[in-house]
Amino acid sequence: MTTEATAPDEVWRDPHASVADRVRDLVARMTPQEKIAQLQGIWVGIDAVGDMAPHQHEFAVAPQDFDELTKHGIGQLTRVFGTRPIAPEVGARTLARTQRQIVESSRFGIPALAHEECLTGLAAWQATVYPSPLCWGATFEPDLVRRMAEQFGGSMRRLGIHQGLAPVLDVARDLRWGRVEETIGEDPHLVGTIGAAYVEGLEAAGIVATLKHFAGYSASRAGRNLAPVSIGPRELADVILPPFEMALRAGARSVMNSYSDNDGVPVAADPRMLTELLRDEYGFTGTVVADYFSVAFLHKLHGVAAGREDAAAQALAAGIDVELPTVDCYGEPLLEGLYFDRVDVALVDRALTRVLTQKFDLGLLDPGYSPAPDANLDLDDAESQALAREVAERSIVLLHNDGVLPLAGKRLAVVGPRADEPGAMMGCYSFPLHVGVHHPDADMGIEVSTVLEALREEHDVVFARGCPVLGGTDDEIAEAVAAARQAEVCVVVLGDQAGLFGKGTSGEGCDVADLRLPGRQEELLEAVLDTGMPVVLVLLSGRPYDLSRQANRLAAVVCGFYPGQEGAEALSGVLSGRVNPTGRLPVSFPGSGSTQPSTYLSAPLGTRSEVSTVDPTPLFPFGHGLSYVPVTWVTAGCEDREWPTDGTCAVHVVLRNETDSPATEVVQIYLHDPVAEVARPVRSLVGAVKVDLAPGQTRTVTARLHADLTSYTGRAGHRQVDAGDVELHVGTSSANIHTALKLSMTGPARRAGFDRVMTPEFTTSP
Amino acid sequence: MTTEATAPDEVWRDPHASVADRVRDLVARMTPQEKIAQLQGIWVGIDAVGDMAPHQHEFAVAPQDFDELTKHGIGQLTRVFGTRPIAPEVGARTLARTQRQIVESSRFGIPALAHEECLTGLAAWQATVYPSPLCWGATFEPDLVRRMAEQFGGSMRRLGIHQGLAPVLDVARDLRWGRVEETIGEDPHLVGTIGAAYVEGLEAAGIVATLKHFAGYSASRAGRNLAPVSIGPRELADVILPPFEMALRAGARSVMNSYSDNDGVPVAADPRMLTELLRDEYGFTGTVVADYFSVAFLHKLHGVAAGREDAAAQALAAGIDVELPTVDCYGEPLLEGLYFDRVDVALVDRALTRVLTQKFDLGLLDPGYSPAPDANLDLDDAESQALAREVAERSIVLLHNDGVLPLAGKRLAVVGPRADEPGAMMGCYSFPLHVGVHHPDADMGIEVSTVLEALREEHDVVFARGCPVLGGTDDEIAEAVAAARQAEVCVVVLGDQAGLFGKGTSGEGCDVADLRLPGRQEELLEAVLDTGMPVVLVLLSGRPYDLSRQANRLAAVVCGFYPGQEGAEALSGVLSGRVNPTGRLPVSFPGSGSTQPSTYLSAPLGTRSEVSTVDPTPLFPFGHGLSYVPVTWVTAGCEDREWPTDGTCAVHVVLRNETDSPATEVVQIYLHDPVAEVARPVRSLVGAVKVDLAPGQTRTVTARLHADLTSYTGRAGHRQVDAGDVELHVGTSSANIHTALKLSMTGPARRAGFDRVMTPEFTTSP
Repeated sequence: MTTEATAPDEVWRDPHASVADRVRDLVARMTPQEKIAQLQGIWVGIDAVGDMAPHQHEFAVAPQDFDELTKHGIGQLTRVFGTRPIAPEVGARTLARTQRQIVESSRFGIPALAHEECLTGLAAWQATVYPSPLCWGATFEPDLVRRMAEQFGGSMRRLGIHQGLAPVLDVARDLRWGRVEETIGEDPHLVGTIGAAYVEGLEAAGIVATLKHFAGYSASRAGRNLAPVSIGPRELADVILPPFEMALRAGARSVMNSYSDNDGVPVAADPRMLTELLRDEYGFTGTVVADYFSVAFLHKLHGVAAGREDAAAQALAAGIDVELPTVDCYGEPLLEGLYFDRVDVALVDRALTRVLTQKFDLGLLDPGYSPAPDANLDLDDAESQALAREVAERSIVLLHNDGVLPLAGKRLAVVGPRADEPGAMMGCYSFPLHVGVHHPDADMGIEVSTVLEALREEHDVVFARGCPVLGGTDDEIAEAVAAARQAEVCVVVLGDQAGLFGKGTSGEGCDVADLRLPGRQEELLEAVLDTGMPVVLVLLSGRPYDLSRQANRLAAVVCGFYPGQEGAEALSGVLSGRVNPTGRLPVSFPGSGSTQPSTYLSAPLGTRSEVSTVDPTPLFPFGHGLSYVPVTWVTAGCEDREWPTDGTCAVHVVLRNETDSPATEVVQIYLHDPVAEVARPVRSLVGAVKVDLAPGQTRTVTARLHADLTSYTGRAGHRQVDAGDVELHVGTSSANIHTALKLSMTGPARRAGFDRVMTPEFTTSP
Repeated sequence: MTTEATAPDEVWRDPHASVADRVRDLVARMTPQEKIAQLQGIWVGIDAVGDMAPHQHEFAVAPQDFDELTKHGIGQLTRVFGTRPIAPEVGARTLARTQRQIVESSRFGIPALAHEECLTGLAAWQATVYPSPLCWGATFEPDLVRRMAEQFGGSMRRLGIHQGLAPVLDVARDLRWGRVEETIGEDPHLVGTIGAAYVEGLEAAGIVATLKHFAGYSASRAGRNLAPVSIGPRELADVILPPFEMALRAGARSVMNSYSDNDGVPVAADPRMLTELLRDEYGFTGTVVADYFSVAFLHKLHGVAAGREDAAAQALAAGIDVELPTVDCYGEPLLEGLYFDRVDVALVDRALTRVLTQKFDLGLLDPGYSPAPDANLDLDDAESQALAREVAERSIVLLHNDGVLPLAGKRLAVVGPRADEPGAMMGCYSFPLHVGVHHPDADMGIEVSTVLEALREEHDVVFARGCPVLGGTDDEIAEAVAAARQAEVCVVVLGDQAGLFGKGTSGEGCDVADLRLPGRQEELLEAVLDTGMPVVLVLLSGRPYDLSRQANRLAAVVCGFYPGQEGAEALSGVLSGRVNPTGRLPVSFPGSGSTQPSTYLSAPLGTRSEVSTVDPTPLFPFGHGLSYVPVTWVTAGCEDREWPTDGTCAVHVVLRNETDSPATEVVQIYLHDPVAEVARPVRSLVGAVKVDLAPGQTRTVTARLHADLTSYTGRAGHRQVDAGDVELHVGTSSANIHTALKLSMTGPARRAGFDRVMTPEFTTSP
């Protein structure tokens, strides 16, 4: 902060003036250079040899002269903590020093906004790695995810970070896509509910949540990363957009564009998406930040811009306020465009106003602003670890169990490439796999047990890896078979190595051609099954794989996705019986011979039928999951058979725990609309709640569903609530329905807008 | 025809009155029953046990009382020849008798319009089976396809048939789809050019051509038949619709709807597709006929209609004029709707007017109309056979040849499930496979040689099947290996059994999960390759298969798709060297690890790139094909570097045959648009011409391309021609470009409508 006295007409300095007035004054005072500087990110540690973003080798130019680049100020600092392994205190000092330098060397003394990745907790060295988004989805517990995000959001805040580039709200559409592991699942309601909770938690900690990737990215052709998206406006509105709407209403203050072109138009150059929809219709007032290099992609990869200036002009006109990760098109090219009047300065001012408003809101221009970090910089404290453990335990999905589980002290053979590998617990946006892999000399920064280690604590175990994730030898498989024969039960731990751009079997840029287990893992599994020993499969993976050939011979299947640094203990808890598994699938597991893209959200003709030899029936359907302790469904019903088109419908489910152990059920409510203006999914989730029951306890769950939950995009192109018959299917998975409630929607047809009520109100008594 | 004298006010009988006036008069005179009767088809021979249409078991009710059903007249007769094996003269007599009965028993004496399938020639017993549509595409010869369609159209006309349910103009989008075999290929320009030629031929014979399936069907999710279509308006306009536009301009008089829902809206209930686009924008005045049972599907499978009456009302309102194959929703349910004023009679009159206008145009109401068939009813005469042979010979694609071909009298082993099977030559809409399979006691009706038989005529051959199309034994594979070892060259004939709804490995309803060769055929191929013998693979299939694992070990690969009843002779001609192969691929063959959906028509981010581990590069690209006789490219250039946005550009290619054998080249011109408003394909075909060169001959090919060929659907949602730089890539396949011509589009940007010039004018001199 400069120390000059405030001149009376310097409204921008006046803490009593409104933010709008202060911003307006600042904008009016700034030179073009100062203006565009606020729209730029700068990535100090970037180099062209890493692979933290697509085409990094081509676009990543390390800033040559930091002083020169920041003398007019700078909008954002990119990943001060998340670029290389630096201790939190070093990072915090570096960030504070950099902020002071920016403040002191530029005319208005505006600090930069510092952003980091935080998909599975802050992506920084020595920070807790929490379970990955598929695990959040599997918990079906928004409150837990909210607590988790608030917890690591607090750490970020203490470090001086302002913005986190999460959550990913893309709805999984094709399991071949490498970034499925970053999604919360294949259902928009689940993704939206969990994603909104994450946003609430992060924002409650004072961190700007960034919704990505707005919108359409996950529907890329054949699941190839960044490939064109074939999609129409209805599917976009009814499947892709709802999570973003829910998360915006939850208070997210930033949005990141999808790299993709949707039906030909790259989102980064699409004012219909980033301005008409996001601003005009949704009323969003925060910032839109570019996904890394995506402004340059308009020129280099999409072929819709003639050069860098044109790319900048189009992105700015579309509504991208800040170029990330580092200055390129929004630098000299944009300045030239302004200079020659080819770019309207009003577009720059629009973006600048949003950026400055956010900086004011964050207190960066408060008189007392100080970039000095908090004293407590332990990013992996006991509280964080306990929460990471809790999320992991509540997310493990027991897919199948013939009774072999819990293992109860049995003598075990443990095999498989993921059994003794800490990295097996983490997704590609965790610091160790996103950044750490480029620094093999640095340690991981956190303690991560492996499944093998955790099982050894309570079992007599013989171990043989069997094969690596990819490749392997016959001899090693034979060793695993020999190990299996020595035990009572064989636990086979298979799955993915997460990584980026070819460094993994799942993760950004690591797409697959089919859903067979990577490498020789299926072969290993078959070899172990051939021993005739009971085999428990533990899957640690970024996507569901095709287990259809082995499913009926496996004694049990446990899916952990990437359960984070506490995942091994959570898994051993489930395997041993200390933890009752309560996770439910956020994505379907493919059936034999099924194909992609495919999700459970399908109109009748997309389901099993005699019109095609390809049967899309999943092996394990969306919402599926078993527990050790059974819950008795006493009744399920609704208060009234009529449901006003502007009112609510109350569904009651009475559950009883007839055992002497604590029990948990996930009550799931699906909508079935027999006749509509358009082909609708046979079932789509409209509400779900996880209910814990004490031994002997009977509880009544009441879900109040607003009629907006039945809305869909009709022929006229807007969301509507129809009068007429609907059914609510209440059950324990998308394929296991306990009760179908027939209801009649009464009253006039209604339009439902951005403010529609998309989450049921759940109450549980006692 | 009734014999009453014409009353003076009976305009409809007055041959001097205009058709419009006559139709108007008839419509005014008709009762509701008489009106809707004209909108109905009737399928006399249908039963619920066959599988000639999806859900036939559910919807196919054989007419109980023909007299009762036709006493008010009837719109169409369904497949009098194409339902069971009946001799042409029997069918013709039956049809004539039925027509007389309809004429005599109804008040206005209006004959029915008789329709048949004719995708690979008339689908009737004893009729020539021509090559299938992928072969037409492979010829790259619209003139040849035009002659073919006119040839069998003449046969149809002589039998008393009025309408043929072909061509299929769906652009292949996903090779897993079973109906890829019915498409002309994956490129809209090729499909449109060949499809329009087919239409011209059929219509020149007096037969109403039916364009199907309008539109979107081929883009069903994951290639599953009838599954929902995820597509936006731009992809629909730029990829799916152009062939229909070209074929409509070629004079097609009927259109059949797509079964699919596009972005949620079933086409059969979509007035935007069937009325606003087809009628209002394209100006189409013919009839729209329902794909079989698709009106009932609105109620039963799409869930957009509340019952049969609602389905009828929606289909009629959307623009479906005639319900096929047999009366259902357009019968009693529609009549009730009219009776209770729930359906506007004006919608019935609109459809009726179109139906009656077509009947007048066809001369069915001419005074001299007689249903008596022609005397010449040989459907498989020498002329037809010769033309089927010519199309087959010009369509065979030589994909790879290390020099082993031509075989020139070598001692051969012939193996493979398709080597000695006449059915291997035919697609699922050929009569033998569509209908004949249900009548195992009837002979095939035509003479069809097998590849084995044809090769035996000029080679010393040892044969072993190796395996069936699906299944098989180790012993049989071993026999094939033993056979291979006895010869100089092993010819392996692999591929599909075409069939419907599970009766084949390709064909309607026979979709696949991946592109591996069916059954154990890849294993057989590997076993034969392991002998070290030179192996020539002959592929007779409905889709490209993944040959990437064997490609570099095969001595030669010849693709025949389904070359029709003369296919074996054409293939042996190519193998022996009597025929110089000149076919070029209308669909890409997948590369190793590539995924579906994928075609060569991809924007840059859909092509090979470091952003995904999945490489979509094809093994054999669109347009690829080799010949025995090389053609020298002397020069390729254009007259002018400027191309007016409303003018033409002339591209010259000088070719020379420096050999003493006749040679043939397919000159292919692709558009590359480096910067546009939307992401455009890296290359898309805008013109292709097959050029024959006599020994020593030099020829100059000139292509005049109108600027409309550069048009695409821009941001504003309409087709536009931009000013600016474009490139024309002239070469011999989509991946083998001889010359890239840089051109500058000059003049104002233009809109291009339905009348845009989509075919270049080719001239060849001398």
